[in-house]
Amino acid sequence: MTIVITAFERSPDGGKGLARDTRVRWALEEAELPYDVRLVSFQAMKEPAHLALHPFGQIPTFEDGDLALFETGAIVLHIAEHHGGLLPKDGNARARAIAWMFAAVNTIEPPILELVTAKILEADKPWTKDRLPLVMDRIRERLNQLSVRMGESAWLDGAFSAGDLMMVSVLLRLRPSGLLDEYPNLSTYVARGEARPAYKRAFAAQLAVNAPLP
Amino acid sequence: MTIVITAFERSPDGGKGLARDTRVRWALEEAELPYDVRLVSFQAMKEPAHLALHPFGQIPTFEDGDLALFETGAIVLHIAEHHGGLLPKDGNARARAIAWMFAAVNTIEPPILELVTAKILEADKPWTKDRLPLVMDRIRERLNQLSVRMGESAWLDGAFSAGDLMMVSVLLRLRPSGLLDEYPNLSTYVARGEARPAYKRAFAAQLAVNAPLP
Repeated sequence: MTIVITAFERSPDGGKGLARDTRVRWALEEAELPYDVRLVSFQAMKEPAHLALHPFGQIPTFEDGDLALFETGAIVLHIAEHHGGLLPKDGNARARAIAWMFAAVNTIEPPILELVTAKILEADKPWTKDRLPLVMDRIRERLNQLSVRMGESAWLDGAFSAGDLMMVSVLLRLRPSGLLDEYPNLSTYVARGEARPAYKRAFAAQLAVNAPLP
Repeated sequence: MTIVITAFERSPDGGKGLARDTRVRWALEEAELPYDVRLVSFQAMKEPAHLALHPFGQIPTFEDGDLALFETGAIVLHIAEHHGGLLPKDGNARARAIAWMFAAVNTIEPPILELVTAKILEADKPWTKDRLPLVMDRIRERLNQLSVRMGESAWLDGAFSAGDLMMVSVLLRLRPSGLLDEYPNLSTYVARGEARPAYKRAFAAQLAVNAPLP
């Protein structure tokens, strides 16, 4: 059986690689697993067939034989647990890598999601111009702490892991805002992730869907 | 070695059980593990000794021998992986339970965190009164999807799991807003979680710290 994931028929970011299927593609590439992609339209995402796979009507989903999963973090962790290249073998180091996965989605990403929401869903509201600096300062608070912890380390905790995959992916969402450039070691860290051959293959695969070259 | 977790010296919620140490206490109680608690003041949370344990200066942390972890979701998952009572034995069911853990913290909790932020950090802002209904509608969108998926099921996917522990804990944050009452099956679900003996012991333990009876 070949693994099948879902992705946007056309990503709202026009191929910048910020849609969450890129995270799963990256994990599959690190683990050197072949996969197929089923593209889903915005309309189909809200229909019963897709909702049976993903109760919140989003992408990506993951199907492998009789296992169907949703939630990017869980899919990446599942891949990491069953294949090489994404989690350390040592039990304690493995637990710490998983801690960074949760830190990426539950500590770093929420204020970033606030910024995305403010810019997209509240773009036309009279308060947004005055409110954005507050939202950005809350992101800076987290980036500052992360920057202090990382120092000049290449990765979050020893070798590259699924924790880095998730953290780099979350930080990438900040690139359009310019916030990442305020933290040179985090910018370098993100660039280090993007330079991995597995990331490059994942990025190219999503770009081929979302911004096909003429 | 006894497990040691950290918790607020005094929780900002005054003992409502919404601080994240309650989630870890609950997991430890489900797994029937003894533990010690080290209480940390707001000042000490920002000092080097605590930041070495938790780079974002928060609670809870988890120490067991030479393993030190932060991030509630990761701590709960670590406990669940090494002890009984929190994850199904079947591999596919286990992966789905972990998917619900990530759904709790990365799909359901972010809009709830927006509400908390709006009410606490932006309480004095001129836009907050007009903006709160938008934030609440975004939470309703997620609750509606969750409510549809759950129907009359007792738990998210078969037997109680760490996915339910995380989801009930996240939904509990909504009680002060009244939003939970709009979804009877979710209210019942949360009450079902609160009725578990392990939850009751965890709640009582945090209450003893935060609101000691005279």
